[in-house]
Amino acid sequence: MQITRAADYAVRVVTYLASRPPDLTVRRSEIARATNVAESFLAKVLQQLVQAGMVTSQRGAGGGFRLAVDGGTLSLLDVVEAMEGPLRLNSCLERGPSCKRKAWCPAHEVWVEAQAALERVLRGARVSDLAAGKSGQHA
Amino acid sequence: MQITRAADYAVRVVTYLASRPPDLTVRRSEIARATNVAESFLAKVLQQLVQAGMVTSQRGAGGGFRLAVDGGTLSLLDVVEAMEGPLRLNSCLERGPSCKRKAWCPAHEVWVEAQAALERVLRGARVSDLAAGKSGQHA
Repeated sequence: MQITRAADYAVRVVTYLASRPPDLTVRRSEIARATNVAESFLAKVLQQLVQAGMVTSQRGAGGGFRLAVDGGTLSLLDVVEAMEGPLRLNSCLERGPSCKRKAWCPAHEVWVEAQAALERVLRGARVSDLAAGKSGQHA
Repeated sequence: MQITRAADYAVRVVTYLASRPPDLTVRRSEIARATNVAESFLAKVLQQLVQAGMVTSQRGAGGGFRLAVDGGTLSLLDVVEAMEGPLRLNSCLERGPSCKRKAWCPAHEVWVEAQAALERVLRGARVSDLAAGKSGQHA
């Protein structure tokens, strides 16, 4: 039960971009240095963030990346889910008839509660606050 | 970020055993039926629970499995960690110099907080309460 490296790196990338002036296009090599992520892996992470609509890429000389949305509207939960899909601590938390036991299984309620607790913390952590060096100030 | 099937099944197994009289040895076929886990996979889960000291196995005719400890002392966190090792939502939560950024990275504090929230819920869920059909009554 651990977030993927891609999600970890995506949080670093988005936080770094949010720390830069909003109209500045940041080169991939600069992002790699700032986030301690190898450029080859970073390319994949950036591509997924672009696909998710969180980052804009600009090709050519002077090209690079910038946040596509205000960092104040992005939470860590948004970033993790952009990389991993919806957070599901256990398969019984998938929508639909994912586990036939869930109507009565006492553990199911605990998984629901555990996921809600995790979501609460990650949803309360704004990318803009992290970029400003603030953390632990969650709802 | 999802618990393994083995951990999910281990919770079912331990909860079922806690619902049976403590001195009763339960056959593997009965556990398989009650937990909806295939016997082949169940064998591996039971073996790991025995190694973790949570379940006792008895060989031979009339053999089977029973809880080795009181279900009131076991939490869902104990069971998950017996199967997956210590809960670490992100690699920076490993002990030691796991990530050179953690001394200053604002996201690190969020991961610490998210893991603590998750642990709180799972630690508050006692196997004996789940066996009695109670859930959602956590600290």
